[in-house]
Amino acid sequence: MKKDIGIGLLGLGTVGSGVAEVLVTKADSLAEQAGLPLILRKVAERDVNKRRSARLGPDVLTSNPEEVLSHPEIDIVIELIGGEHPAKEYIERAIANGKHAVTANKEVIAKYGYELFSLAGEHNTDLRYEASVGSGIPLISSFQQELAANKISVIHAILNGTTNYILTRMAQEGLDFASTLKQAQELGYAEADPANDIEGRDTAYKLVILSNLAFRTKFVPQDVYCEGISNIAAQDFLYAGEFGYAIKLLAIAKRDDDEVEMRVHPVFIPRDSQLAKVDGVYNAIEVETDLAGKLVFYGEGAGSLRAASAIVADVLAIARNIYHGVNNVPEIRLNQRVTVKPMSEVKTRYYLRLDAPDRPGVLAQISKVLGDNAISISSVIQRESNLAAQTAVIVIMTYPAEEQGIQKALKQLKQLPVVSEVSNFIRVEG
Amino acid sequence: MKKDIGIGLLGLGTVGSGVAEVLVTKADSLAEQAGLPLILRKVAERDVNKRRSARLGPDVLTSNPEEVLSHPEIDIVIELIGGEHPAKEYIERAIANGKHAVTANKEVIAKYGYELFSLAGEHNTDLRYEASVGSGIPLISSFQQELAANKISVIHAILNGTTNYILTRMAQEGLDFASTLKQAQELGYAEADPANDIEGRDTAYKLVILSNLAFRTKFVPQDVYCEGISNIAAQDFLYAGEFGYAIKLLAIAKRDDDEVEMRVHPVFIPRDSQLAKVDGVYNAIEVETDLAGKLVFYGEGAGSLRAASAIVADVLAIARNIYHGVNNVPEIRLNQRVTVKPMSEVKTRYYLRLDAPDRPGVLAQISKVLGDNAISISSVIQRESNLAAQTAVIVIMTYPAEEQGIQKALKQLKQLPVVSEVSNFIRVEG
Repeated sequence: MKKDIGIGLLGLGTVGSGVAEVLVTKADSLAEQAGLPLILRKVAERDVNKRRSARLGPDVLTSNPEEVLSHPEIDIVIELIGGEHPAKEYIERAIANGKHAVTANKEVIAKYGYELFSLAGEHNTDLRYEASVGSGIPLISSFQQELAANKISVIHAILNGTTNYILTRMAQEGLDFASTLKQAQELGYAEADPANDIEGRDTAYKLVILSNLAFRTKFVPQDVYCEGISNIAAQDFLYAGEFGYAIKLLAIAKRDDDEVEMRVHPVFIPRDSQLAKVDGVYNAIEVETDLAGKLVFYGEGAGSLRAASAIVADVLAIARNIYHGVNNVPEIRLNQRVTVKPMSEVKTRYYLRLDAPDRPGVLAQISKVLGDNAISISSVIQRESNLAAQTAVIVIMTYPAEEQGIQKALKQLKQLPVVSEVSNFIRVEG
Repeated sequence: MKKDIGIGLLGLGTVGSGVAEVLVTKADSLAEQAGLPLILRKVAERDVNKRRSARLGPDVLTSNPEEVLSHPEIDIVIELIGGEHPAKEYIERAIANGKHAVTANKEVIAKYGYELFSLAGEHNTDLRYEASVGSGIPLISSFQQELAANKISVIHAILNGTTNYILTRMAQEGLDFASTLKQAQELGYAEADPANDIEGRDTAYKLVILSNLAFRTKFVPQDVYCEGISNIAAQDFLYAGEFGYAIKLLAIAKRDDDEVEMRVHPVFIPRDSQLAKVDGVYNAIEVETDLAGKLVFYGEGAGSLRAASAIVADVLAIARNIYHGVNNVPEIRLNQRVTVKPMSEVKTRYYLRLDAPDRPGVLAQISKVLGDNAISISSVIQRESNLAAQTAVIVIMTYPAEEQGIQKALKQLKQLPVVSEVSNFIRVEG
């Protein structure tokens, strides 16, 4: 009979420190729920300063991950170093050593999830990742268990706090992208290297994880069409407002028979929709299902304790299984024959913003290019932008059209002598 | 080795028919997820017409619940007859016969949950009730598992579709309560006997269930202060709008150290809050936690397939445990020493609507009564209501005050010669 559950932690960054704090300060309540005490046995962190600032005994702290991965009295390894390598290899070694693994690593799960779940299956251990999407919002388990009887048809989600914070500030204050990003970095809402967030890759990883659960398949990040927010200008918010829209970076997955479209890009969404009202660092996930109807999950998608909530819940679930002497992982078989719909075939409405000389006949030529590519215009705003230079801004909202048609039209518009610049192009959703 | 999982169903009403339909039409997908086929062996329904309309074999249908409760090849009994008796006794007999039970019965779980969980523990069986609150919205399991590491401090929730539908229609169309209720009944959104819904009892049952999970204790429906919506008038919506509020029937639970206040009553809530925007038959549950922060769950809280989503998920969870040969029920120990805060000590702001003769000094006398009871006024609207009769409507918004003070003041106001009527009195939340 086991006396306790040994926990090993890799990484003492923001999330790791939060997890260590929860495991220590809530030890009594967690022990009661798990049936056995949860003992944080070893914490590996390379950065000596982070080790110093942790209020953990020197026997607990180490700079060597191997001391966690092969510790005989560690049952559960929590991987919180992030990034692709060596995080993936650490998870593999933990599993190969017969340990259960908990991770918040969306990149590793999105890229290697299937491979790692198979490995865990072979070693009869559990690999949990509730914190990888939406942090403390109960998503992974809801998809795995409470929605298990449903067929999920659509996901619309705001999954990245950094980009949503930047877009919210831009919308509220009329600032441009670069200065808003800079402020966000100063306030700690964006990282020094923000590429993963602002280019949409972080969101795409999360969409892959949710889609694989929703559609029971094995998509990878390359299956997601991905565009970031750095091209959004203050002006775009003004026009969005005039047409009754907000601008958000959305993760979108839609199933149509055996085809799934998956895309991450900025969108115009109706200002009165629920997702339009999700501001700042909040996340929201809207799911359409056949039985449960439309569900929305809302909460903070980042932060030390937010992630710790999900990670410690994963640890508790595994600890209960260990206590009961069982390995009862909810299995979702990823065996559905669904394919990715090519982006070129995706149909949406579009917002186009063009700069053109302010003279007669310009709109006629632009309209002709769109019409030639089977794109119908639903509204147009034309406005003087620079009196001296006699240039105008032309903003066009289209009816639904195929992506390949719009891409062809954009190429042709750029070559039109009467178009100075195709300044932006944003898809409309909802 | 078991060949299949036998299911027995009690009740073929709206929800029962939905569950039967899902078990039959999704049999293949469910079998794959459970590891074994789920066979609907027996369905007990007293009403011969309901039995006739079900597309189930005559060997499956019966009018005798005992054929379900003691069937040797039934592993899981789903109780969907609703109401207190004999539903409670059926669940007891199922458990006593060694069967697992799944129910959507909020009344039975709110009143006898602890007793039934103990019985299930003794018989080593599982009792699940995900559909009892919020239908297909994953709440029970989220409270039991994903939020297990959290201390929950506040719940604000819209938990009853009928009352929310009525309040939404009244707000949008300026109709009075009685005619809106009648329309809701004609459209099937309110029952012929709507008392349980409109008096708030249904909501109170659900609040007890959530509170017991959130605060890990054993509250019963009598612990909840409960007021319904039948006293809300079209006028109240007008004044709510003027002050920037919506009117909703909220379930509220707040923990303050070892005391919990639990109440169900109509409230003024700020029009731009998330709950204010939950319209029609939708439900929403806002939870404040120490680790995960503020979370909101949103979805349809009623309907045949909505409930079936949760019920079949419960069945799947039990079936997986049977397949794995384990009984792994997440245990939440209901052992916290928390007591119910008396309603008289609850502090909120208040909206008061009074009818009074339109003559000098009236407001002064009303203000004095409030002041004598330590209630400060934050705003007042006084308006002629009937020119001929020279009466006025006086609407008062107060600063936070204790319920016992306001109740005393209301009694005194009713006795004031200058007050013709205390027409309404609604608490303000948020």
